[in-house]
Amino acid sequence: MIKHALPVTRAADFAAWYQSVITEADMAEESGVRGCMVIRPWGYGIWERIQRLLDDRIKATGHENCYFPLFIPLSYFEKEAEHVDGFAKEMAVVTHHRLIGDGKGGLTPDPEAKLEEPLVVRPTSETVIGTAFARWVQSWRDLPVLINQWANVVRWEMRTRMFLRTAEFLWQEGHTAHATVDEARGETLQMLEVYRSFAEDCLAMHVIAGEKPENERFPGAVETWSIEAMMQDGKALQAGTSHFLGDNFARAQNIRFQNAEGQLEHAQTTSWGVSTRMIGGMIMVHGDDDGMRVPPRVAPWQIVIVPMLRDQPEDEALLGYCRDLQKELAALTALGEPVRAMVDARAQKAATKRWGWVKKGAPIVIEVGGRDMAGGNVSVIRRDRLYREDGKLDSVVTPRGDFVAGAADLLEAIQAELHRQSTEALRAQIVPVDDWAGVEAHFADGVKNPGWVDVRWSKPSGAALDAVVERLKALKLTIRNAPAGQGAIEGVCVFTGAPAVERVLLARAY
Amino acid sequence: MIKHALPVTRAADFAAWYQSVITEADMAEESGVRGCMVIRPWGYGIWERIQRLLDDRIKATGHENCYFPLFIPLSYFEKEAEHVDGFAKEMAVVTHHRLIGDGKGGLTPDPEAKLEEPLVVRPTSETVIGTAFARWVQSWRDLPVLINQWANVVRWEMRTRMFLRTAEFLWQEGHTAHATVDEARGETLQMLEVYRSFAEDCLAMHVIAGEKPENERFPGAVETWSIEAMMQDGKALQAGTSHFLGDNFARAQNIRFQNAEGQLEHAQTTSWGVSTRMIGGMIMVHGDDDGMRVPPRVAPWQIVIVPMLRDQPEDEALLGYCRDLQKELAALTALGEPVRAMVDARAQKAATKRWGWVKKGAPIVIEVGGRDMAGGNVSVIRRDRLYREDGKLDSVVTPRGDFVAGAADLLEAIQAELHRQSTEALRAQIVPVDDWAGVEAHFADGVKNPGWVDVRWSKPSGAALDAVVERLKALKLTIRNAPAGQGAIEGVCVFTGAPAVERVLLARAY
Repeated sequence: MIKHALPVTRAADFAAWYQSVITEADMAEESGVRGCMVIRPWGYGIWERIQRLLDDRIKATGHENCYFPLFIPLSYFEKEAEHVDGFAKEMAVVTHHRLIGDGKGGLTPDPEAKLEEPLVVRPTSETVIGTAFARWVQSWRDLPVLINQWANVVRWEMRTRMFLRTAEFLWQEGHTAHATVDEARGETLQMLEVYRSFAEDCLAMHVIAGEKPENERFPGAVETWSIEAMMQDGKALQAGTSHFLGDNFARAQNIRFQNAEGQLEHAQTTSWGVSTRMIGGMIMVHGDDDGMRVPPRVAPWQIVIVPMLRDQPEDEALLGYCRDLQKELAALTALGEPVRAMVDARAQKAATKRWGWVKKGAPIVIEVGGRDMAGGNVSVIRRDRLYREDGKLDSVVTPRGDFVAGAADLLEAIQAELHRQSTEALRAQIVPVDDWAGVEAHFADGVKNPGWVDVRWSKPSGAALDAVVERLKALKLTIRNAPAGQGAIEGVCVFTGAPAVERVLLARAY
Repeated sequence: MIKHALPVTRAADFAAWYQSVITEADMAEESGVRGCMVIRPWGYGIWERIQRLLDDRIKATGHENCYFPLFIPLSYFEKEAEHVDGFAKEMAVVTHHRLIGDGKGGLTPDPEAKLEEPLVVRPTSETVIGTAFARWVQSWRDLPVLINQWANVVRWEMRTRMFLRTAEFLWQEGHTAHATVDEARGETLQMLEVYRSFAEDCLAMHVIAGEKPENERFPGAVETWSIEAMMQDGKALQAGTSHFLGDNFARAQNIRFQNAEGQLEHAQTTSWGVSTRMIGGMIMVHGDDDGMRVPPRVAPWQIVIVPMLRDQPEDEALLGYCRDLQKELAALTALGEPVRAMVDARAQKAATKRWGWVKKGAPIVIEVGGRDMAGGNVSVIRRDRLYREDGKLDSVVTPRGDFVAGAADLLEAIQAELHRQSTEALRAQIVPVDDWAGVEAHFADGVKNPGWVDVRWSKPSGAALDAVVERLKALKLTIRNAPAGQGAIEGVCVFTGAPAVERVLLARAY
């Protein structure tokens, strides 16, 4: 039996496993500030890779980056009633702008420095960005406005979990204004597709893109679309959303333009975002009982070279051999970018370093000892294929030249293999179910890892939808989305027996 | 006489000129939130360029990026008395985590959701990062810790000015911990040099690196070093700082390690940062009466191609000609990176677009009309050399192939020319002065644009220094820094008549 690197396996306790991956891979840690985490270099390095790759795609579709204030005056929220209902319950509020001594050696907010109007730390920026759009947009010639920002936002969550749900998190939020409904809906779907292809191509994470049901819409939105990923415990994770806001925000914020005929119209707006939550999803999609497995495209280091140093004079030659190898690798191109290779020359045991990088999920770990160097070899470990059939670590002695010649292909193969596994896992864990009894049976108590079910429904609205949501709640289920691009369907609604109009996915979710 | 693009000249009213550059170049605008600005795409694009170039240098010197919480518990500040004295007066304080309806259709902080311990929006992160260092550092083997973060910070400024002094601003803050004083001081000076060379090489901004006097030290620091830039109105701008903190923060935050001999020691720490303020400095160093002049290395677009569209069928061919040109330029390398060229195909008059890009300070603007295309030419405007000697716009018809062949050299020449002008301006505006009467005369009422003076002083401390600061204050002067690398000096202190120990620069400052 294999002795794995983590103290707990996925099968034994998925939640504890997730937490141990984050700790053992030095991804993040508690900060001492309620609900806020410290993102450590390996975790932040992955976020930087995500930013770089996604930002390129956001710019390639014509958007420009801006920066809007962290603070939003209370009155901005009062304008958009539905939006406020959705967010008002969980916001950090700044009420004072100065501290003074409390007379007991401590500090306290200065009563003299109370703000006339409290400021909210942005939970999302529709209101403040909409106010800017109202200044910028006068004529149809000013449209579309296509902007994005990378920022921190705060939502006061009661129960937090690293990366998945934290009080402060990092994200990008795109905001656009258009002259027509068609163009704004087109933008909403274009960005959904950017997210879908980014998740698949870069995070090697198979996702289902589709429309959220009415009850799951963003506060104030006309349509909310999402990409949903399958975690290894069968739960769903919403990994990105794109909202068509119609003229709801434009009316509240007075974003109006003179059309070509000289009449005033309200603009049609959209917003869309992904966050550091994606990192949590990536961990739960690709991780195994030895830690993370980071897809090469988003790995801060794709190839880590570990010299087996012995604190002896020979170390110098070994380090030289490793540094030359690093230079050769860094000159290669894989997956469209220069290969990111590093030498881990820290004064620690080689085995400690090896397992450290395995837990961090570096795609390829190279060990080089004196014997390897003498033979002109390297020992190669592929993170996606860690063990041989006999359960031993699969470290393959390879001529150095052969490894370098094949390194780019190997990285591309690992990226493809992780994506293949994710696709297979998602497909295997979605089961079509035809009636409510089938849904109840599928999610009965004690069924381990039930995955998702694919059902037909009549898309009820209002009170009828509320009733459906209540029935689902009893099974701890939610409607994830109605997958995009489904054709016409037949059959009856699993909830109401009425003729079905579309398929939706039901799942337990993060 | 030249009719310039801005409504106000530098000579007429420098402060109004600065504000008009920011407005006319679409750099930033008031947000409606007190002291916070909206950074628009051209302004944020410059910040992204600064981030990319500086981040490369920060990583090349061995630092890794992390992310720490936006909020800092009040108690963290209470630990470091001197630090708090320096910051306590100007911080945004979060006291509530929920809003509720106020019964009058508005919103108000929920009294039920008052935080037990108020949270401060970070004005800088020494305290929260030091707390993490205390967790991370146990042994000499854990040192040095070399990290950096890119983040927003908030300081409640009473008088704000776009980019130069805003309540919220964007910056990077490096934080490091070391085993020895020598190593930590070496780090402090290394990062000062990174800032100096970055300002010179990338921002084309000549600066003076040196040590700040005792009264200008960062709260809690043992030494504070800065780079100081010369604005065109003769004022100084502190454009970056690097602090050696000794063990002051390590003692307050209990950052201790076991040394090789097995004894516990406090670590020696540093911090260093530059912010969006650099952009304000760049405007005041390079701008002219037609707007910004952005050095090619940090220009989001280095070459902007403006087709002279006429809303006619011929436009298609003209656009094709411009797009082909853009592709040829984008395939070039200048200043070590691919050339950033774009076609401005917006439906506006060519002259409006031309002057828009002149005001934004794009290094090269290319205009292409039907006649240019027919002759295989382009019309080239260099932003650093806008007018001919006769005062007419210097737009040079050039064979397209010649322009492409010389484009990379031209960008490098513009970068070098801006740096040359900045160096010359700085040198011309620093005058050595030998006695206090000379200082008073130099900065007498009515002297326009006095620049800086270079004086000798005896480096008084404590009350003697306070007296010097008071005398300077009467002339609205501050000691900027003692330039690094000065040799032994002779002569007497301009303030006290005692033997001088070093030269310092005196100036009015932003």
